[in-house]
Amino acid sequence: MSGESSIDEASIDRLAELAIKTGVALQTEQDLLISAPVESLPLVRRLCIHAYKAGAGIVTPMFTDPEIILSRYEYASDYSFDASANWLFNGMGEAFDNNTARLAIVGDDPMLLSQQDPEKVGRVNKANSLASKPTRERITRFDINWNIISWPGLAWAQRMFPKLAASEAQLKLAEAIFSASRVDQKDPIAAWKEHNTNLRAKSNWLNGQNFKALHFFGPGADLTIGLADEHEWMGGASMAKNGVICNPNIPSEEVFTTPHASKVEGYVRSTKPLSHQGTLIDEIEVRFESGRIIDAKASKGEKILSKVLDSDEGARRLGEVALVPDSSPISQSGLLFYNTLFDENAASHIALGQCYSKCFKNGGNLSKEDVKSRGGNSSIIHIDWMIGSNNIDVDGISREGEKVPVFRKGEWA
Amino acid sequence: MSGESSIDEASIDRLAELAIKTGVALQTEQDLLISAPVESLPLVRRLCIHAYKAGAGIVTPMFTDPEIILSRYEYASDYSFDASANWLFNGMGEAFDNNTARLAIVGDDPMLLSQQDPEKVGRVNKANSLASKPTRERITRFDINWNIISWPGLAWAQRMFPKLAASEAQLKLAEAIFSASRVDQKDPIAAWKEHNTNLRAKSNWLNGQNFKALHFFGPGADLTIGLADEHEWMGGASMAKNGVICNPNIPSEEVFTTPHASKVEGYVRSTKPLSHQGTLIDEIEVRFESGRIIDAKASKGEKILSKVLDSDEGARRLGEVALVPDSSPISQSGLLFYNTLFDENAASHIALGQCYSKCFKNGGNLSKEDVKSRGGNSSIIHIDWMIGSNNIDVDGISREGEKVPVFRKGEWA
Repeated sequence: MSGESSIDEASIDRLAELAIKTGVALQTEQDLLISAPVESLPLVRRLCIHAYKAGAGIVTPMFTDPEIILSRYEYASDYSFDASANWLFNGMGEAFDNNTARLAIVGDDPMLLSQQDPEKVGRVNKANSLASKPTRERITRFDINWNIISWPGLAWAQRMFPKLAASEAQLKLAEAIFSASRVDQKDPIAAWKEHNTNLRAKSNWLNGQNFKALHFFGPGADLTIGLADEHEWMGGASMAKNGVICNPNIPSEEVFTTPHASKVEGYVRSTKPLSHQGTLIDEIEVRFESGRIIDAKASKGEKILSKVLDSDEGARRLGEVALVPDSSPISQSGLLFYNTLFDENAASHIALGQCYSKCFKNGGNLSKEDVKSRGGNSSIIHIDWMIGSNNIDVDGISREGEKVPVFRKGEWA
Repeated sequence: MSGESSIDEASIDRLAELAIKTGVALQTEQDLLISAPVESLPLVRRLCIHAYKAGAGIVTPMFTDPEIILSRYEYASDYSFDASANWLFNGMGEAFDNNTARLAIVGDDPMLLSQQDPEKVGRVNKANSLASKPTRERITRFDINWNIISWPGLAWAQRMFPKLAASEAQLKLAEAIFSASRVDQKDPIAAWKEHNTNLRAKSNWLNGQNFKALHFFGPGADLTIGLADEHEWMGGASMAKNGVICNPNIPSEEVFTTPHASKVEGYVRSTKPLSHQGTLIDEIEVRFESGRIIDAKASKGEKILSKVLDSDEGARRLGEVALVPDSSPISQSGLLFYNTLFDENAASHIALGQCYSKCFKNGGNLSKEDVKSRGGNSSIIHIDWMIGSNNIDVDGISREGEKVPVFRKGEWA
């Protein structure tokens, strides 16, 4: 682990300021919970400074360490792989109930667990999914303002740039993160304001169309995704139930909504590899019938994929569909990040599992039953994977069955 | 922060193994919560390995960072200084209720907060004391097995050895810690077994005497400490309520028991400086009447001392008295650690505040009311400070009023 990083300190500070002011949009006297890899300590320190400058109550950073995660796989007895720190997730649930905002930093090696026993990885993922329910629910419901940013972790950088020396790779990833997060621009906060306006224009158009379904077609794809009743398209800034307008993801290039859990038909294949909790799943091919995946394969990580699909009933159904043009800056960078926060912003995508209850008209006030009756899916997982590319077209299907071009060759039509 | 430390890795590993096997005595399938300064990451990693080797369920490390602690004092608004992460302490309380063991690493600069506004420091201490009640109670009651060890933090080392270069100072502190913790011995686990037998012999003798009071006398001291009804002397290994025999402190040279909260009379002065939550309090002089401190001064940190004494009603009364001979290895090292874990093992001492309910006959099963009716004190604080030296004598006062020499010139009589 490198304590002194050669990453540009001014950029780290600008990312921290953007995350506090525009990302989580921390309010005066609001508490903040930060989860972060221990390697990202220089960024966490700047986040704390900006949080306190913004009038925070108390900031609580929680650090994780990849070596400690690996030591469990190497040394723990069988019993351990179904254990989890329920008390911690329950505590975090209490924090969110008391209006604590949440900021997460991603930055660990996306393939950290790729050499570990898939059966153990699957058990740990399931135990964590169950234990983290109190926090996951409050976040997908947008009870509070939250934000995810990233740190150019050394091992992550080396996965992306295996031919470079470690420190060069890290600087290159740092540049890519700062650029995608718009902190290389003169006024990052103003740049995000403009970007949010553009995303809002797209979601407003889609909401005006009020499509019944989207049809993805092209090589490897003939997929009709029925949209949930009273679905609403969102993108960029989002108002949490506590009234705070935050930007959950930095970067973000998507507009997204909730599919109908039982109205997805046809087949599709992934257009980019999926990095899932330390393992890589590549060339996914699935077939849906009445909203449910009835057939799934992958050229790599198929065992993990099938464990994911068996997490619960809702894991085989869709919780999100998102549109991202192939011309998005992240797509144009040509980089594969092995990290959903970035890769989902390089292509249109779908997510298995839990839907966002916010993506409904009047979404802030729907009960679980309301969400279900409108076709919203529920699950202990929410996993995005890419199905868009410059070969894929998308039509909107109107209430009257009319086809309206939405994407052509990967671009807004 | 230094990631790569030049501290002997084999010794770090031996300390970790000792802490897991003898210190916390982690049981198969037991979860473990570790709190640690981020600087001690190399030790935490070894602790996790030994915990998993010992059959742990899940190990959850929680890291703190001194720079983040300081940034609050520098940048936070006034509101922040009464805030605390209640959800985290509540979660930890839940963990202990579910038999999670606890291991804490101390290692930060003992004078971290010495330049900060004492009023703010006092407010933060009080807010943390109140919020941490669920965890402190379960620990002082010994609901679960717990242990404290230390890490040779760079800033702490520089306080102790201000004339040495930082890295030399750190190596010197590391040596002192390894020696006091007996990990420099051939078989540290066997050495602790023998040490526990010796401490047990002393506490057995004191329990046989069943003194009504102890009388400390010498230069600056004429203090009679009445002992609680049915008090029990303890030292070294201790059985927690969950049936696990652990060594709460590494190092430990003391035997200790519970004073009577309303039967302490006379005056005493501190024989070593007290480092309290980042500030130094030196040359304390107090006078007791009916168990209560009615007069207190200090040559340094008097404001913090008076805030401490005003924490609550029990803060002016004693919760512990401990006997440590002047010949203890830590005293003989001649080092002042500015750290209670060490300095309390260099001299006999008393503690303000909460008593250990374990230090009673049948202590594991006493209710709060039982403890109180026997004279046990309660408070949100528990702060040890030194009153022993090679100038101080101690007599035991028997039920019949007879005086029995216990210490002469700082040694067992």
